[in-house]
Amino acid sequence: MVTAKNIYNDVVKIRSESPLVHNITNYVVMNTTANALLSIGASPVMAHAIEEVEEMVGIARALVINIGTLSNSWIESMLKAVKAAKQKGIPIVLDPVGAGATKLRTETAHKLISEAPPTIIRGNASEIRALYLAEGGTKGVDSTHSSEEAIEASKELSRKYNCSVSVSGKTDIIIYADKIIRIHNGHPMMPRVTGLGCTASALTGAFAAVNPSPLLAGAHAMAVMGIAGEIAAKKAKGPGTLQLYFLDALYQLNESDIKKRLKAE
Amino acid sequence: MVTAKNIYNDVVKIRSESPLVHNITNYVVMNTTANALLSIGASPVMAHAIEEVEEMVGIARALVINIGTLSNSWIESMLKAVKAAKQKGIPIVLDPVGAGATKLRTETAHKLISEAPPTIIRGNASEIRALYLAEGGTKGVDSTHSSEEAIEASKELSRKYNCSVSVSGKTDIIIYADKIIRIHNGHPMMPRVTGLGCTASALTGAFAAVNPSPLLAGAHAMAVMGIAGEIAAKKAKGPGTLQLYFLDALYQLNESDIKKRLKAE
Amino acid sequence: MVTAKNIYNDVVKIRSESPLVHNITNYVVMNTTANALLSIGASPVMAHAIEEVEEMVGIARALVINIGTLSNSWIESMLKAVKAAKQKGIPIVLDPVGAGATKLRTETAHKLISEAPPTIIRGNASEIRALYLAEGGTKGVDSTHSSEEAIEASKELSRKYNCSVSVSGKTDIIIYADKIIRIHNGHPMMPRVTGLGCTASALTGAFAAVNPSPLLAGAHAMAVMGIAGEIAAKKAKGPGTLQLYFLDALYQLNESDIKKRLKAE
Repeated sequence: MVTAKNIYNDVVKIRSESPLVHNITNYVVMNTTANALLSIGASPVMAHAIEEVEEMVGIARALVINIGTLSNSWIESMLKAVKAAKQKGIPIVLDPVGAGATKLRTETAHKLISEAPPTIIRGNASEIRALYLAEGGTKGVDSTHSSEEAIEASKELSRKYNCSVSVSGKTDIIIYADKIIRIHNGHPMMPRVTGLGCTASALTGAFAAVNPSPLLAGAHAMAVMGIAGEIAAKKAKGPGTLQLYFLDALYQLNESDIKKRLKAE
Repeated sequence: MVTAKNIYNDVVKIRSESPLVHNITNYVVMNTTANALLSIGASPVMAHAIEEVEEMVGIARALVINIGTLSNSWIESMLKAVKAAKQKGIPIVLDPVGAGATKLRTETAHKLISEAPPTIIRGNASEIRALYLAEGGTKGVDSTHSSEEAIEASKELSRKYNCSVSVSGKTDIIIYADKIIRIHNGHPMMPRVTGLGCTASALTGAFAAVNPSPLLAGAHAMAVMGIAGEIAAKKAKGPGTLQLYFLDALYQLNESDIKKRLKAE
Repeated sequence: MVTAKNIYNDVVKIRSESPLVHNITNYVVMNTTANALLSIGASPVMAHAIEEVEEMVGIARALVINIGTLSNSWIESMLKAVKAAKQKGIPIVLDPVGAGATKLRTETAHKLISEAPPTIIRGNASEIRALYLAEGGTKGVDSTHSSEEAIEASKELSRKYNCSVSVSGKTDIIIYADKIIRIHNGHPMMPRVTGLGCTASALTGAFAAVNPSPLLAGAHAMAVMGIAGEIAAKKAKGPGTLQLYFLDALYQLNESDIKKRLKAE
């Protein structure tokens, strides 16, 4: 069950253990996601060279793969990294950014899943639908569906690959086989900051490093995202300051904030 | 004519239509320009893989090419993307970052222009002069000329390629053949934030997506840049906070702000 | 000797001369380091294409190499750039990010040093130890040693390559042969912002452009980092706002701030 106490326990673990999270992610958000991981207490590393990804996975406690700005050499490195992560047994989080927008993205996501089924897939509703239904219709990297519309696809993906699926949206939905958790936290200004979806994936990696349940790691990460976003939005005058206050909120997050704000079912 | 009403009409269109703007841009500013596009209400996507640029152009309403951190594979993708944009008939904005500083940059800008003349070229005075006069003398990516010194080069480029040219500087000058618009908005602290020139190009893409006039789309974008910069500078204590308040100002921009501050002729 | 007056003299020179600093650095921090260079008054340029690095070095006053996100083509460009910088006689700053974490990083750092000994090596204690002792044991890109533990390695590297070595940590230690400077400025929240180490290297490049002493350029840069961090931390509520106030502090830095806060020995 998603409770403030359990979420905060994970936060405390992240802060005390400072797990190394290896990210192979897109150029747009690298800075943002590294800062979010540092703000919550984890230790981020970004490394994409084919020569070093195995070694870096070897010292990491979670691997986050994000396909937001692909090219062939990066795809090769991603495949090598997920294979190494699978062998080592550390959690893999896959963010299929823009799946459905181009063939390259949809196919790369599928290749990565086939090479090593992720522990958690985290995307928006259009991306998750695209992965299962092989449909297009996304608007670049922004969703054109509500998260509720991705439930069936999520369930099927979860069963097929034995992973959990986190669908972000107005309501965040986290699915593992037949189990569904809904998180109603967050703020409408959040989609106006680039990379908050990618940040959710990065934080999911940090939570998966300390929590063995793919369902709960995914749900706790989304709850923390939403709650930190709400706290940030109270002071923010726009997406610029929201982004910074969000990092501050991750850094200062305490159990009573979570307790007061958590809306999970 | 550049009026507050017309500028704001474009802003309202961007906010309601949220046009997808495809950016192939430099590593330094990707995050900044994506956030600026989101803050004004557009939908940014960054994609540079040769395998997907055509497809991404296919769903986009404007293409922004920025040569700030080049390499060969990126140049190939840029050429393919501008060709696809030309065929599809969507506006192309070219930011020739550092043209004049190195042969690679000057030549790449010319190659891109030959492959598909841009709708709008947006650069600083040294870059625009370098494109026309084949002269060097820029200081890396910073201008060593005033925008007035780039008027002749701009007029010639505009005539030759049937495009508008936006020259940013203390005074922003937007030129289409013999028409000249001068925007006197902005703040001296703005050049101390990296990527505000690139952000001007990205916003120009958003305005070009909703306004068919290359002259007015260019001018409206520069006016919004300058006005948001002024609003941000009122509160900012330095380039750090300026950058954030600038995004907030884009997000909150309303007609009366524009009316009060616009200095166009 | 490190005095407020001497530090501020360098700051004034940077602000008036605005030296062009050429950076070949990692994707995560490009934006941050460019903004820090602009905030202190320097002029940053980022260029990594093998075709243009020599030309860009040709107009730059310092070269900063940072191996935070390597790949083969970037390594080739780095080697070409340091060779050109050596021939031209401009200072080279090397930031061996993650040396010790993977073979690729340790070997690349050594290759760069062999090709052209840097003027200043700036890293954390684990990285500096890895360079000299060929030991691993770093945690990704974060240090697992105190800066005091890197003194012997620093001295040896300094003697062997006739360079100064800046080791950042709770205490920053700058070494040139037998000379040691310790800077006790800074704030515990600073390691929670990504890229502040890389920013220290970039600023070291700016100081090396105006100060011919590798020891003092290194020490002045670290002092300014620490002091700006302290000023920022007074207002910051977390790593998000710290990052921005830090840039503001660089921009506003004056002699009396430095005098009041400097703790050097």
